[in-house]
Amino acid sequence: MKKARVAYNGTIHNAVGVEEGLQLPSGQIVEENDVIFLPPVQPKTVFALGLNYADHAKELSFNAPTEPLVFLKGPNTFVGHRSKTVRPLDATNMHYECELAVVIGRSGKHIKKEEAYDYVAGYTVANDYAVRDYLENYYRPNLKVKNRDTCTPIGPWLVDASDVGDPMNLSLRTVVNGNVTQEGNTRDMIFDIPTLIEYLSSFMTLNEHDIILTGTPEGLVDTKIGDEVTVEIEGIGRLTNWIVSE
Amino acid sequence: MKKARVAYNGTIHNAVGVEEGLQLPSGQIVEENDVIFLPPVQPKTVFALGLNYADHAKELSFNAPTEPLVFLKGPNTFVGHRSKTVRPLDATNMHYECELAVVIGRSGKHIKKEEAYDYVAGYTVANDYAVRDYLENYYRPNLKVKNRDTCTPIGPWLVDASDVGDPMNLSLRTVVNGNVTQEGNTRDMIFDIPTLIEYLSSFMTLNEHDIILTGTPEGLVDTKIGDEVTVEIEGIGRLTNWIVSE
Repeated sequence: MKKARVAYNGTIHNAVGVEEGLQLPSGQIVEENDVIFLPPVQPKTVFALGLNYADHAKELSFNAPTEPLVFLKGPNTFVGHRSKTVRPLDATNMHYECELAVVIGRSGKHIKKEEAYDYVAGYTVANDYAVRDYLENYYRPNLKVKNRDTCTPIGPWLVDASDVGDPMNLSLRTVVNGNVTQEGNTRDMIFDIPTLIEYLSSFMTLNEHDIILTGTPEGLVDTKIGDEVTVEIEGIGRLTNWIVSE
Repeated sequence: MKKARVAYNGTIHNAVGVEEGLQLPSGQIVEENDVIFLPPVQPKTVFALGLNYADHAKELSFNAPTEPLVFLKGPNTFVGHRSKTVRPLDATNMHYECELAVVIGRSGKHIKKEEAYDYVAGYTVANDYAVRDYLENYYRPNLKVKNRDTCTPIGPWLVDASDVGDPMNLSLRTVVNGNVTQEGNTRDMIFDIPTLIEYLSSFMTLNEHDIILTGTPEGLVDTKIGDEVTVEIEGIGRLTNWIVSE
């Protein structure tokens, strides 16, 4: 099953994806174009991976990490499918990042790799935009790079884990204005999903609806005002949004 | 007025501090020792400052930053007054950090310094423990340093801003097992509270109950299992907790 949180007729609904569009809890079927997609979950903690695809690390001239590079994102950076993301006036380099988002299904601590998938509710797609201009050098919390308002489109669907074959073998791609600019596969992650869950839960409790953004493969290009950016993952969804001016 | 969230008789109460202890919404007065203090607010986003006191930056052999160094903390690292903080088995250097915590009172974006205090609900005390062993070198998200379960005692009180004279002139100190180990004053912050609010709100919406941990002055020492650590700020409160083993 795939689920979405949508605004329709002034109310927020937990809808289910069906062939004709979305089914609201009332049973009513509505078309995708008639709703406003919201982020499919409301996490307390959002983890994001830096440099988790070796080709992307190389693209940014970094060595591949030997331990997961995880930073936090503020949940209020999230926006839904078909929303707008603001490009700052002084930005010269604002990259999209197509990422598989893992949604935690239940609370856990000290979770072993072997049982990690038992803690996954499902998956969605995220675009973890980065304004690389704001990276600092000697001590670099990436707050301004990765935590701007509107900088994390996510959705449209939360797809049940049981409907996803092998999450470590899904193709990803990004399409900007109709042109494919990024292609990859989740099998090229340096730290796979079970490893990330084991690592994070070794020192932090993971809670229901917490999200892990698993990183992006190579193929980043600067996005300009007016661009239509679609990030898509095989079997999970296509997430489109637009770049606008401040 | 000073407020606390406490557990008492199996229920969570929003209590008010009075001379005899705490007044529950029912009017009942209870003693501090009879309640369990919870974090006084439940933020969505927690900002924390690195190296925001020049003497502390020097102590860690860093140059003072020229732009605020802000990272995010997960709200679920918070624990209340008189709670326990776990020292990891492999830690050799776990520092307390006495910090003034600014609690945002209402939502705002692009807030100017001059009106920044209008957005502050009040203040509390935080101990932003850091396990320095886990700092990395070439790219250093500090997740494992600063986001372990139980690593952020906060409270006991949310003190109304109107009851705090000049928040930029408050003495801070830390007492470990009865010995004063850290002393400072908020006037020595490199970036003051209005500057931090202007900076953060320039790219992120600040929301009610979001928290800014404003950094710590010099005087950090390793804390050991069994230590009683009290961080206190003039007019805001005394926050005590204990270091325990994993």
